[in-house]
Amino acid sequence: MTQLEKVQQTVADLNLDVAYLSDPMTINYLTGFGSDPIERVLALLVFPDHDPFIFAPALEVEAIKDTGWKYPVYGYLDHEKPFDIITTQIKKRNPNPKNWGIEQSQLTVDRLHSLTDQFPKADFSRDLTPNIQQLRLIKTEDEIKKLDEAGKWADFAFKVGFEAVKVGQSEQQIAATLEYALKQHGIMQMSFETLVQAGAHAAEPHGATSVNKVNGDELVLFDLGTVYEGYISDASRTIAVGKLNEKQQDIYNVCLEAQLTAQAAAKPGITAAQLDKVARDIIDKAGYGEYFIHRLGHGMGMSEHEFPSIMEGNDLVLEPGMCFSIEPGIYIPGVAGVRIEDCVHITDNGCLPFTHTSKDLTFIG
Amino acid sequence: MTQLEKVQQTVADLNLDVAYLSDPMTINYLTGFGSDPIERVLALLVFPDHDPFIFAPALEVEAIKDTGWKYPVYGYLDHEKPFDIITTQIKKRNPNPKNWGIEQSQLTVDRLHSLTDQFPKADFSRDLTPNIQQLRLIKTEDEIKKLDEAGKWADFAFKVGFEAVKVGQSEQQIAATLEYALKQHGIMQMSFETLVQAGAHAAEPHGATSVNKVNGDELVLFDLGTVYEGYISDASRTIAVGKLNEKQQDIYNVCLEAQLTAQAAAKPGITAAQLDKVARDIIDKAGYGEYFIHRLGHGMGMSEHEFPSIMEGNDLVLEPGMCFSIEPGIYIPGVAGVRIEDCVHITDNGCLPFTHTSKDLTFIG
Repeated sequence: MTQLEKVQQTVADLNLDVAYLSDPMTINYLTGFGSDPIERVLALLVFPDHDPFIFAPALEVEAIKDTGWKYPVYGYLDHEKPFDIITTQIKKRNPNPKNWGIEQSQLTVDRLHSLTDQFPKADFSRDLTPNIQQLRLIKTEDEIKKLDEAGKWADFAFKVGFEAVKVGQSEQQIAATLEYALKQHGIMQMSFETLVQAGAHAAEPHGATSVNKVNGDELVLFDLGTVYEGYISDASRTIAVGKLNEKQQDIYNVCLEAQLTAQAAAKPGITAAQLDKVARDIIDKAGYGEYFIHRLGHGMGMSEHEFPSIMEGNDLVLEPGMCFSIEPGIYIPGVAGVRIEDCVHITDNGCLPFTHTSKDLTFIG
Repeated sequence: MTQLEKVQQTVADLNLDVAYLSDPMTINYLTGFGSDPIERVLALLVFPDHDPFIFAPALEVEAIKDTGWKYPVYGYLDHEKPFDIITTQIKKRNPNPKNWGIEQSQLTVDRLHSLTDQFPKADFSRDLTPNIQQLRLIKTEDEIKKLDEAGKWADFAFKVGFEAVKVGQSEQQIAATLEYALKQHGIMQMSFETLVQAGAHAAEPHGATSVNKVNGDELVLFDLGTVYEGYISDASRTIAVGKLNEKQQDIYNVCLEAQLTAQAAAKPGITAAQLDKVARDIIDKAGYGEYFIHRLGHGMGMSEHEFPSIMEGNDLVLEPGMCFSIEPGIYIPGVAGVRIEDCVHITDNGCLPFTHTSKDLTFIG
């Protein structure tokens, strides 16, 4: 049974008349067609007893057909009314669909109004977000292979990036060098903006790569990822340029211990919250708890914001095939920032990382 | 009056108790803080009679303070309940806010449920999307300057890109070369994925840059843009590699005539729909109407999906300060694709483009 057939089964099991799926990532996952329609309307309609169809901007229709999609696809031109066309096509299959499933985590309020205007008596209360998340939670062998390949390219990027580091180079120049090397090999897309942060700048965990130059005698943080056949990598390393003082050494060592201990503890049976605590306890005990201001990790696969979230309060029990990051960080404003991150997939008795760049502290210069 | 003060005025004028603004682009526009929180909660709360505040993930708080934001900012940790904290802060200012304004075009259904759970008796029917769009529609002098600068970098990218074109180079290699040159100059972000498409591949207007090689005796389409201080550029050029046949020449000439004629017609007083028709009539008359499958243009500024939309049915009258693309395209499946695009801003008596790369057909090789 394909993943799309499983959704069709869910629609039937829940006694829904139609599912309106609008998250571009869901559509990519279920159909193989990946596109961000921005403000245009893209949707996958699934029925319990009819073939599904895709509704898309006219200028995407050829690309959808090229993916081998074997069911209907209907396009609309920019000046046409998308929800009129969707309604016409739905009514051909079911003149009076009452029970709808939608993705509440993606559908915007104005689009829901467009649907309720067309079907004023229908019930839109069923949220299919959890069902889709559950479907995507356990990765298949084929997905793991793609994630492994994306991880290899992240390792390649670290290698190129570390070689590009020298005193006087800007963070931006280093990022440009590693991204160019990837593109020369046909890896055109990063999974997010490459982060290179030197010294105290790394204490801003969501800051951007800047014109700041590497000064030496400091830590330099890399956080990067690539896209391979729709699947991403995401990894962080922090390296030393020149000599480190005791404080810099200490926060690196504590962060590394937290990362390695958590990665060793990640296996079937432990909960997401327990795993977060494994790393957090080590950082707390060393006195840096207040500087670890994010969850231990996030799920990943086609994107870097999937389930499971590895954090306090999430009692989900880890199972083989779940994929997520393990990324403790210590950020001391004005001083330094350290983050060490591998993404892993849970196996039968532990976990395996997608990236393999050494986590021992690397000294440059 | 700042743009944020104008929003506060609107909130008062509409008798709203609070506005919950959640579009990251709106927040960037009004506060200068640009960030994509992905699945985390980021919101700007505006009141008629209290100072506004930002609610953000804890790891964004330092970056927000760094922008010079002078009002409160409240952060939340990943395991905390964001809407509990937001509610507490709102109730300190107004214990019983009844009339809310939201951005229906951005707020997802589940987040609206989170708000209605906290404020079950409140009215969330007021959509502030049109008010924010209206505010952003007319660009200030300062915004035009940034758009001009972003445009200059697009011109630079075309120059580097055209020089990189030769038979046997892949589309991806050409894109990598021009992006690297930009990054060497500190332009780190493209406004969208750079498009380089050779020959028949260019007939897929939303296809991606691929491993396809330039074969020669064909058209090669470039569509690219950069980000400069939060403002974007977006431009397309199609060039000839080797010799063209009559058909290729003809669709280029028709597309060029449509683009130039529309750009000459863009001035205060004409409507968006009329401007679309100026270009479309030329392409229709030449017999290629069925191959021009998108609107003439889209608004732009901080993003490439703003208002006004230049298309049939939009009777908005153009005014000085409006910024949008003029980008007719002719896409003949299996044969060739041509698109020629400048973004412009309307002036007192015409329009001025942000990009200046020649639109005469350039021959290479």
